[in-house]
Amino acid sequence: MVAQVRRKLIVVSNRGPVRVARDGSVHRSSGGLATALRSLLQHQDVTWIASATSDGERALAGDTLQQENYRLHLVAHDPQAYDWYYNVVANPMLWFVQHSLWELAYTPKVDAAFHRAWRDGYAAVNEAFARAVLAELEREPDAAVFFHDYHLYLAPKLVRNSRPDATLMHFVHVPWPQPDYWGVLPRAIRCAIHEGLIANDVIGFHTERWRRNFVYSARELLGDDVTRKTVTAPISVDPAEFDELGESEPVLAAEREIVAQRPEKLVVRVDRTDPSKNIVRGFGAFEIYLAAHPEMHRRVRMLALLDPSRQDVPEYAEYLGAIEREARRVNDRFQQQGWTPVELRIEDDFPRSVAAYKQFDVLLVNAIFDGMNLVAKEAPLINTRDGVVVLSENAGAHAELGDWALTVNPFDVAGQAEAIHEGLTLDQDERHRRLESIRAHVRAHDVNEWLDVQLAALDRVATTARR
Amino acid sequence: MVAQVRRKLIVVSNRGPVRVARDGSVHRSSGGLATALRSLLQHQDVTWIASATSDGERALAGDTLQQENYRLHLVAHDPQAYDWYYNVVANPMLWFVQHSLWELAYTPKVDAAFHRAWRDGYAAVNEAFARAVLAELEREPDAAVFFHDYHLYLAPKLVRNSRPDATLMHFVHVPWPQPDYWGVLPRAIRCAIHEGLIANDVIGFHTERWRRNFVYSARELLGDDVTRKTVTAPISVDPAEFDELGESEPVLAAEREIVAQRPEKLVVRVDRTDPSKNIVRGFGAFEIYLAAHPEMHRRVRMLALLDPSRQDVPEYAEYLGAIEREARRVNDRFQQQGWTPVELRIEDDFPRSVAAYKQFDVLLVNAIFDGMNLVAKEAPLINTRDGVVVLSENAGAHAELGDWALTVNPFDVAGQAEAIHEGLTLDQDERHRRLESIRAHVRAHDVNEWLDVQLAALDRVATTARR
Repeated sequence: MVAQVRRKLIVVSNRGPVRVARDGSVHRSSGGLATALRSLLQHQDVTWIASATSDGERALAGDTLQQENYRLHLVAHDPQAYDWYYNVVANPMLWFVQHSLWELAYTPKVDAAFHRAWRDGYAAVNEAFARAVLAELEREPDAAVFFHDYHLYLAPKLVRNSRPDATLMHFVHVPWPQPDYWGVLPRAIRCAIHEGLIANDVIGFHTERWRRNFVYSARELLGDDVTRKTVTAPISVDPAEFDELGESEPVLAAEREIVAQRPEKLVVRVDRTDPSKNIVRGFGAFEIYLAAHPEMHRRVRMLALLDPSRQDVPEYAEYLGAIEREARRVNDRFQQQGWTPVELRIEDDFPRSVAAYKQFDVLLVNAIFDGMNLVAKEAPLINTRDGVVVLSENAGAHAELGDWALTVNPFDVAGQAEAIHEGLTLDQDERHRRLESIRAHVRAHDVNEWLDVQLAALDRVATTARR
Repeated sequence: MVAQVRRKLIVVSNRGPVRVARDGSVHRSSGGLATALRSLLQHQDVTWIASATSDGERALAGDTLQQENYRLHLVAHDPQAYDWYYNVVANPMLWFVQHSLWELAYTPKVDAAFHRAWRDGYAAVNEAFARAVLAELEREPDAAVFFHDYHLYLAPKLVRNSRPDATLMHFVHVPWPQPDYWGVLPRAIRCAIHEGLIANDVIGFHTERWRRNFVYSARELLGDDVTRKTVTAPISVDPAEFDELGESEPVLAAEREIVAQRPEKLVVRVDRTDPSKNIVRGFGAFEIYLAAHPEMHRRVRMLALLDPSRQDVPEYAEYLGAIEREARRVNDRFQQQGWTPVELRIEDDFPRSVAAYKQFDVLLVNAIFDGMNLVAKEAPLINTRDGVVVLSENAGAHAELGDWALTVNPFDVAGQAEAIHEGLTLDQDERHRRLESIRAHVRAHDVNEWLDVQLAALDRVATTARR
C-alpha cells in the first residue's frame, strides 16, 4: 500500500469501540464491527460517536472524551426512545426484514405501537445522532462522516439537510433484500429508509449481491439510479490477530479441554443465537447425517458454541428455546453411554470459540441470510486439521469463499447432511488444498483492504467535490 | 374486435372445467380459472387436458371425451404421486414460495421426503401431463398448447424436447417472487422450474410487476433474457355473468337475509381461507377501527365469507384455526346484546358471496400477495351502495384499480383500520365516482380481453415460426 494521508473521520455507530463500566473503567467492545473498525483508529484521526448504553456511559455523554488514539463522543438517549429504537424497530423489525425472517401470514403487525416506536424511537434516536454529528462538524468542518449499519438509516439525510457539502459515507453490514420484501414496511417508512441512505455520498455493501439489491430497491421505490454512489467492500479480519489469539493461553487452555473430550470428528458451529443463523436446521441436518451413517455414531460430535443474543426481543428468546429443544431431540434420539452427539453451549466464551476454530473437521455456516459471516473467514486461518467449510449460498462470505467451500442451500437439510458427510470424507489433499486457498484469500484480502476500498471511494468523492 | 380465426388449442390445467361425479353426471368446476377459461370454449377448438380427481373421473381417464363444445382428456395419476404433487409440492411449497409465506427461520425444511415428493410426485405428474399433450399433438399437430399455473412448470420443457416446433404458451396465475425468495428452493429445483417455463414460446402474467420479476429471476438463475417471451395480461371477469347472477333467485334470497340482519354499515370480505389472503390481520385492523370509533359500535359489522381451502395441508388447517381464534377474540372484546361485530362464515356459498358484493359499504381486500384477486373486480360491478374498495398494494388488481381504491399495506393493520374509517366516511359523490370508475375499467377490460391479448401473442409466435 502507498502510505495514505491521515484523514479526519467522524465514525458513527450505535455501539462504540469500548464499553465504559459502572466504575468508569474502559473495556473493548466485542463484535466484528467494533473489531474491524478498531484498525481505523491506528491510521486515521477519528472521532467516534456512539450511544451511551449504561449508567456509567450516560454520565459521560455529551462531552468529547480523549481516548488513547481517538476521541469518543457518547450520545445519551431517552431510555424509552432507545428501547423503541433498539428493541422494536432495529431488532427485530429491520433485522428481520433485512434477513427475510418474518412469517408474513402472521408477522409483523405494523400497528400504532410500531408507528410510535418508529417516530418517537428510531427517528428520535437518529435525530440525536445527527445533532451529535453536526456538533462535531462545527468543530471539524472538513471531517468525513462514516455511518454504520441499520440503526442509522435516517441520520445521513438529517446531516445533509444542514450541511449540504458534508462528505458522508455509510456501510451496511447486513444483507439488502430485494424491493418486494421491503414492502413489509409501509411505503412512508421504506421510502424514508432509502432516502436517508441515499443522502450519503458513498454507500458500501459486503457483496455485489447486496449492492445490486440496493440499487434495485432504490430505483423501484424512489426512481433514482444510485449505482455510482455504491461500492462493494467485503469486510474481513486481521489475520495477525488470529495468529496471536490461537497461541494465547486462554485459547490453548480451552483447546486442551476440547482435545481431551473430542471424538474422532468434530463438526463445529460458532454463532450468536440469532434466527438468521439457522441453528435449528443445522441440528436437523446433523440428525439426518447420523441416521444415514450409523458407522459414525460415537465417532462424531456437533459442537455448537452459541453466544446468547438479544434476549429481550421475544423472537430471539423463542428461537433460543427452539435451539435447545432441537438439540435435546437429536440427543434423545441418538445419545449413548459416553457419547452425546450434540454439545450445545450457550455462553459468550471467545477463547473457546477460537479453540474450536483450531479443532473443527467440518465448520458449519448454514445461515439463512448473512451480510458476511466472519466465522467463515476467521476459523480456517488457524484450523489445524485441514477442516472443511460448509457454507450457505446466502452468506456474504460465499461470494469470496464459495469455490473452496461445500455450498449448501440453507433450507435444504438433506443437502446439508450430505455436505457434512462429504466434508468428513474428502481426502486429505483435497481438504488441505481447499483450506489453504481460503487462508490465502483471507490473508490477501484482510480488514485493511476493506477500509482502503472505502477510503479510496471517499477520496474520489472529496476530489470530485473540490472540483 | 375483428372476428378471429378459430384456433386449435390444447388447454392444460390441473383442474378441468367440469367435475364428473360418481354417478357420471357432469358439473361445472368452481374457481376463477375454470370460469375464465370457459369462455375460450365458445370461440376456439379446444381439447382440455386435466387431472382425474375422483373415482368417477379416473374411470374415464385416457380417452378423449366429447363434451358440448370441446373435448376433455382426463389424466389419471398414481394417487401417491398425486398427493406428493398436490399436497406437498404445489400446495404448500410452490404456493408458499410464490406468495412469500414461509417463516424462514423455521420453515420450510427441504428434506429427503420433499426431494422424493418433487421427483416422484411433481415431476412424475408433469411427465404424465406431457405424455397426454404429446398424444394430443399426434392427433392435431398444428394445435397450440396453453398450460396453466404453478402445477405444470415442468411439462412445457418435456413437450418441447419431443416436439421442438410445437407452439407452447403458459399463464402463471400467481405472483412471481424476486430471485432471492426463489432461493428457498435448492438450486436444482428452482432452475428446473425456470427452465421448464422458458421452454414456452409465450409466458403470461397478470401484471407488469410479476412479469418483470420473472424476467429478473430467469436472468439471475439461468442467465437468459426472456423478455420477448413474456406478456402481461390481467385476468378479468365476464360482467354479463355478474349482472345476471346479481338478479338470480338464490342471490336475491341471500341478499334479503343479509339486508334483514345488517347494521347500518357493512365491511365485507370474500376469500378462500388461504394464508395469503391476510384474514387474521383484517380482523385485527377491524378491532383497531372499533377501538378508535366507539360511536360506530352496533352500527357496523365485518362480514367475512370464507370458502374453506386445502384443509388437508397443515398450514391451511392451522390458518383456519387462527382465523377463528382472532374473530372470536375481537367479538369477545366488543360484542353486546344484539350486536356481533364480526360475522364469520366458513362455507362455500357463492350466492351469499354475490349478495354480499351488492351490500358492502367497504370491501376489504388486504391480501399479503395475490396474483390478481378477482373479488376486487367482481364485487364493484354489482354493488348497490356506492361501496369503497380497500385494496392491498400487493394484489395484482391494484395495478389496474389502485387509483380508485383506498390503498393499504397488508402488514400495516393501523393503516387498514384508517382505510376502513376513511371508506365508511367518504362522501357519497366521491364514493360513487370511484365505484363507477372501477366498473368502467372492468367492463372495458373483461375476460375476453385477457384471452385476446394472449391469443394475439400466440399468433405472433405462430407467424414468426412460419417465416
